[in-house]
Amino acid sequence: MSTTARSWSRRSLAALGLGLLLALTPALGPFDASVALAQTDPLPSWNDGKAKTAILDFVRRVTTQGGADYVPVEERVATFDNDGTLWSEQPMYVQVVFAVDRLKEMATANPALRDSQPFKAVVEGDRAALAALGEKGLLAIIAQTHSGMTVTEFEAIVRTWLATARHPRFNQPYTALVYQPMLELLDFLKANDFKTFIVSGGGIEFMRPWVPAAYGIPPERIVGSSGKTLFKLGADKPVIEKLAAVEFVDDGPGKPIGINRFIGRRPLFAAGNSDGDLEMLQWTTLDSGPRFGLIVHHTDAAREWAYDRASPVGRLDKALDEAPRRGWTVVDMKSDWKVVFPFDKK
Amino acid sequence: MSTTARSWSRRSLAALGLGLLLALTPALGPFDASVALAQTDPLPSWNDGKAKTAILDFVRRVTTQGGADYVPVEERVATFDNDGTLWSEQPMYVQVVFAVDRLKEMATANPALRDSQPFKAVVEGDRAALAALGEKGLLAIIAQTHSGMTVTEFEAIVRTWLATARHPRFNQPYTALVYQPMLELLDFLKANDFKTFIVSGGGIEFMRPWVPAAYGIPPERIVGSSGKTLFKLGADKPVIEKLAAVEFVDDGPGKPIGINRFIGRRPLFAAGNSDGDLEMLQWTTLDSGPRFGLIVHHTDAAREWAYDRASPVGRLDKALDEAPRRGWTVVDMKSDWKVVFPFDKK
Repeated sequence: MSTTARSWSRRSLAALGLGLLLALTPALGPFDASVALAQTDPLPSWNDGKAKTAILDFVRRVTTQGGADYVPVEERVATFDNDGTLWSEQPMYVQVVFAVDRLKEMATANPALRDSQPFKAVVEGDRAALAALGEKGLLAIIAQTHSGMTVTEFEAIVRTWLATARHPRFNQPYTALVYQPMLELLDFLKANDFKTFIVSGGGIEFMRPWVPAAYGIPPERIVGSSGKTLFKLGADKPVIEKLAAVEFVDDGPGKPIGINRFIGRRPLFAAGNSDGDLEMLQWTTLDSGPRFGLIVHHTDAAREWAYDRASPVGRLDKALDEAPRRGWTVVDMKSDWKVVFPFDKK
Repeated sequence: MSTTARSWSRRSLAALGLGLLLALTPALGPFDASVALAQTDPLPSWNDGKAKTAILDFVRRVTTQGGADYVPVEERVATFDNDGTLWSEQPMYVQVVFAVDRLKEMATANPALRDSQPFKAVVEGDRAALAALGEKGLLAIIAQTHSGMTVTEFEAIVRTWLATARHPRFNQPYTALVYQPMLELLDFLKANDFKTFIVSGGGIEFMRPWVPAAYGIPPERIVGSSGKTLFKLGADKPVIEKLAAVEFVDDGPGKPIGINRFIGRRPLFAAGNSDGDLEMLQWTTLDSGPRFGLIVHHTDAAREWAYDRASPVGRLDKALDEAPRRGWTVVDMKSDWKVVFPFDKK
């Protein structure tokens, strides 16, 4: 692993580790929102305001043939962060919840796992030990839970977990905690001939089992972090095995690198919610021609969560400072969104 | 670099090195083929025969709704090797010709390059020194010619080179040396709702400038080898720089790994022409349901080239042995193709 990759992964993993320690907030019932959806409005769950106007105006400009800002269809690429931008990342990243649940399940089948750290701490919920995990311990947990099976087996493991796991606050499947206004934005861009991509710090193979159904984005448009894999022919039954080694961390400066590697075009539009999206927003917007940078600012503790500069999960600090001078649109969840989740809709 | 990656790259680079040494064959005029193209035939440049029948039959089966072999549109993924499968790779890989030309140009601007090996050997065409290059020398040549610029600059360099470089035998731009029957196959699959991808040992960034126009395949559907890159913000002008280090070698066992990473679905259809495609063909076809493996066998010295087991470029040995028992369709270029290149058409 290069020094750079190690440093990104340390940052990501530190955030994951702190996420593990966050207390679960008390469960609340679904928010009872009264929403009037206009049939002709492509963004019915967005309140009228600067953010909605900016989005509508941008899409109109780049799709108006003959206009100064017209962009040919093949160049209309939009990239979206996932955790905190398209679905909730609180009280901890969903993939970390998955890793913890899976480790507990593995310890049931293999009790020896309870005998050594860092697994003992996770299985027993030992918060002091968890706090002392560090990068090495966290890497060991990811390696233990995300390797040692084929990619096909891992996909089935993720699907099975998602089918039964419930969010501690909303008592909903995690895939129900996607943001209704962002689903509308994805659909609106697609209807205007944008190709939409996920560009997430999360694992590609953790996302592929559910992203297509949740967002209408196919598997080949999911850019994310990945572990190394190995091809084995076996007895005429080829498999791809997941290894316990990091291949690529698609976070921070890794996002423009992943975009270049997987997509091969500079996006026209990028949406994120944390400092992990800063370089993607810079790469997308700091060029000539019409460009759009969007930041989802979590300002709504009643319907979702309110957090930014001090949050260990999804910290939004530098990117929030940079937004005004870059002309990025900061979405105020509380005032800009009529509803947050699809289950909020009447 | 892992041991495995190093071993693939050694194999690839050994082939490249031998390619460098091949004498250029004498130039011949375009082959004068009389071709009657039927309007209703989706593969007009294919002669009737086993290969054409197998392709037509396969596509009919997987697209017949209600049929036993019907495959939903979203699962119709087809992957194509590039060198020797979609365009000519003789007398040497086009990317190697590019590297040699570029090194000569760099030596004009920077004569000091002529003073040290391996650059001296390349610039002076010293065949004995070239023969002794080895992996290290070849890596140095690729590093010297494919790094030290931004990805945007590299794209312009490739475009400029392609605009003027001519193939030594056919005196045509390299992008004219694509195979007409394979263009028809790509179009036929696309018309039947397949997503077509390039999965090549060549460099992603060498392919992106010309693949979309040549094959109708967009940049995000090009899987290939890559070098490491670095994101730099600079003075509010972000760039992605190409570094002199290998990131991924998309050859041999790297092909199913690249397919899994970039595409995230197992292909239904794969086409290749060399042992570098063996694992892609295995991964594609050794599974349940309808599957299609295709090998372009270069059997036509008059119109293109005839080579297989003994060729340092595009060696086809193990995959040719394995084809019969796997049920892969081996295309005999000489008898199966009415024309080879688009410029052969009347």
